[in-house]
Amino acid sequence: SRSYTVTLLPGDGIGPEVISVAKNALQLVASQEGVDFKFKEMPMGGAALDLTGVPLPEETLSAAKDSDAVLLGAIGGYKWDNNEKHLKPETGLLQIRAGLKVFANLRPATVLPQLVDASTLKKEVADGVDLMVVRELTGGIYFGKPRGFGTNENGEEIGFNTEVYATYEIDRIARVAFETARKRRGKLCSVDKANVLEASMLWRKRVTELASEYPDVELSHMYVDNAAMQLIRNPKQFDTIVTNNIFGDILSDEASMITGSIGMLASASLGESGPGLFEPIHGSAPDIAGQDKANPLATVLSAAMLLKYGLGEEKAAQRIEAAVLDTLDRGYRTGDIYSAGLKLVGCKEMGEEVLKSI
Amino acid sequence: SRSYTVTLLPGDGIGPEVISVAKNALQLVASQEGVDFKFKEMPMGGAALDLTGVPLPEETLSAAKDSDAVLLGAIGGYKWDNNEKHLKPETGLLQIRAGLKVFANLRPATVLPQLVDASTLKKEVADGVDLMVVRELTGGIYFGKPRGFGTNENGEEIGFNTEVYATYEIDRIARVAFETARKRRGKLCSVDKANVLEASMLWRKRVTELASEYPDVELSHMYVDNAAMQLIRNPKQFDTIVTNNIFGDILSDEASMITGSIGMLASASLGESGPGLFEPIHGSAPDIAGQDKANPLATVLSAAMLLKYGLGEEKAAQRIEAAVLDTLDRGYRTGDIYSAGLKLVGCKEMGEEVLKSI
Ligand SMILES: CC(C)[C@H](C(=O)O)[C@@H](O)C(=O)O
Ligand SMILES: CC(C)[C@H](C(=O)O)[C@@H](O)C(=O)O
Repeated sequence: SRSYTVTLLPGDGIGPEVISVAKNALQLVASQEGVDFKFKEMPMGGAALDLTGVPLPEETLSAAKDSDAVLLGAIGGYKWDNNEKHLKPETGLLQIRAGLKVFANLRPATVLPQLVDASTLKKEVADGVDLMVVRELTGGIYFGKPRGFGTNENGEEIGFNTEVYATYEIDRIARVAFETARKRRGKLCSVDKANVLEASMLWRKRVTELASEYPDVELSHMYVDNAAMQLIRNPKQFDTIVTNNIFGDILSDEASMITGSIGMLASASLGESGPGLFEPIHGSAPDIAGQDKANPLATVLSAAMLLKYGLGEEKAAQRIEAAVLDTLDRGYRTGDIYSAGLKLVGCKEMGEEVLKSI
Repeated sequence: SRSYTVTLLPGDGIGPEVISVAKNALQLVASQEGVDFKFKEMPMGGAALDLTGVPLPEETLSAAKDSDAVLLGAIGGYKWDNNEKHLKPETGLLQIRAGLKVFANLRPATVLPQLVDASTLKKEVADGVDLMVVRELTGGIYFGKPRGFGTNENGEEIGFNTEVYATYEIDRIARVAFETARKRRGKLCSVDKANVLEASMLWRKRVTELASEYPDVELSHMYVDNAAMQLIRNPKQFDTIVTNNIFGDILSDEASMITGSIGMLASASLGESGPGLFEPIHGSAPDIAGQDKANPLATVLSAAMLLKYGLGEEKAAQRIEAAVLDTLDRGYRTGDIYSAGLKLVGCKEMGEEVLKSI
C-alpha cells in the first residue's frame, strides 16, 4: 500500500484543535483508499519559542523536509507580539517557507452556495465567486536584501527593505499560474504596479513573454490598486490571479473576506520538488483558543489540498471535499458561519460530523 | 477682497470636462463670498507629453508652485501606456507630488445616504461608513533608492525597488493623521506590515511614540492584510487610517470602492507649506472621454477640499458641499451612480444643476 510521512505542525492558538480534526479526517480516508500515513508532530511558532527558544527549531525543519507533505495549523499570539524580529512566530513561518522552497502559494477563494449569506457583499455580487490567487511566496520584499535599520545622509534613523525579483523567480511562479489557469477557466490576471515600480515592470515583461507558451490562456494585467477595487466591484470577473509576495498577501486576504467565511479557506504552498506546505488561511485566533469554538473546515480542506497537490491522491482529496459539503448540507455550522435555523456545533463535533460524512 | 491664484491641470481623458465644471463652481462661490480667483490652466500628463514631450513641463511645475492651490483632473490613457517610464503620464503625477512636497494625501471615503445602494456591500454594512485614509505620498517604495534593473550574482536580470522611511517622514505624516483623527471621531488606525518589514517596524515604533502627544486620540495598529479584510468585513470600525505610500494606494482605492461611487470621491494632498494638490480619486476614464458622460462631482468636491484645506475658505467649501448634496437630493445622477426613477444627466448638465444649487 502507498505510504506517506506527513509532518503536523499544530502551532499556536486554535492550531492544535483544528489539526487534530484534520488528522482524523486524513486517517479515515487513508484507510478507505488503502493508503498508509505516518504522522510526525513537531513544534513551531510560539509553541516552539516557549519550548526551544526559536520559532522554527532545526529538528522541525528537517522533519518537514524529510516528509512527503507538511500540514500547519496556525501560528502567533499576543504573547509573542512584541518579541524581536528573529523571535517572532511569523519569522518561523517565513523560515519554513524559505526552507522548503515553496515559492507558489495557491489560495482558492470560493463562495459556497451554502454560505453565500456569510459574505458582506450583496448576494448577486458574491454568488458564484470562484477564484484562485497564485502568490509568489519566497521572494520580493519579504526576503529582499539589503534590509534593516540605518541612518540617512542627515543622520536620521531609517528602516528599509528591498523589493526585488529575478527573471527565474517570475518565470517559475508565472508558469504555475498559467498551468493553474489552464486547469480552471483559462483566464489569468497578473497584478502588479508596473506604472511605478521597476520590479513590477520586469514582472509584467516576463509574464507577457511567457504567455506565448500558453495560447489557450487569456492573459490580462491589472494594477494592484485597481485589483483591490475590482475584487469588491465585481469579483466574478476573476478566475486566476498571479502576483508578488506582498500584493498577494493583501489581495488574497481581501479575496478571502469576500467569501465571508475565512474559516473555510485552505491554501497550498508548493516548490519545484520536495514536500508542500498546507495550511488554513486563517490565523491562530488566540481569543477563542482552547474553547472548542474554532472552525476546523479550513484545515480539513487544507488536508484535501495536501492529498491532491502534495501527494497526487485525487480520490482521497475528493472524498474529503465532498464530506465537507455534505456536513454543511446537513446543517452543521461553527459559530463563525452560523445563521439562524442551523445546527451550531463546536470544533470537535464538527470534526465528528465530517468523519460521518466521509 | 481675498484673491487667490489657482492652477488648473485638466490632464487627460475626462479631465478637461470635469475640471471645467469645478472651475464654474469655484467661480460662482467666489462671487458669493467676495473672493477673487485667477485661474491658470497648464498642460500635464499625456496632454503635456503630446504638446511638449514630457509629462510635467517645467512651466507647469513652476506655475503650480507659484499658485495658492492646484486642481488636477485626471491623467493617463491607453495611448501612453507603453511609454518608457520617464515618458509615462503617471511619472508626471509623481513628479508634481514630489515637486510640491505634498507628503500627506487625505482621501475621505463616505457613503452618502443618497448613494448607499451603489455599494456592492450589503446596505447594513455600507450604511454610515465615514472614514479617512491619510496616505504618505512622497516617500516609501515610490521614491526609494536604489531602484532600477540589474543582474544578480548568477547573471540573471533583476528589477528592484527600495521601501525606505526616515523618522522625520513618519513623524510628519503621523502628526497630520493624529490631527485629522482629532477633528473627526478621535480614532486612528495605523496600518503596516511590522511583522515582516523593517520599514514598518520603524513606522510602528514612531507612531506609537508620538501617540503620547495626542492623548485624546485612540491609536490602534493593524497589519495591512488584515486591514484589507476588515475594510470589507466591517468598514464602520474605521475612523482615520494612516499608512505608507504603497499600502495607502491599495487601501484607499479599496475603501473608495466600498462606497460604490468613486465618481464622488475627492482627495487633498498637502505639504508643510506651499500650495496643496487637489484631485478626484478616479482615473481619466479614456473609454468615456469627450462623451459628456463623466461624473464631475468628485472634482467639484475636490474643489471644496481646495477651499477648505488649501485656502482656509471654510464657508465657500461648505456651500459647494451642500450644493452637491442638494443636487443629489433633487434626483440628478450621472450614469455611474444612476438608479431607476432618478434623472439621468451628462457631465455638463450635472454641472449646471450644481450651480443652481449653489
Ligand atoms: C504571518 C505573516 C508573516 C504571513 C504573511 O505575511 O505571509 C501571513 O499574513 C500569511 O499571509 O500567511
Ligand atoms: C497613477 C498612479 C501613479 C497613482 C499612484 O499609485 O499613486 C494613482 O494610483 C493614485 O493613487 O493616485
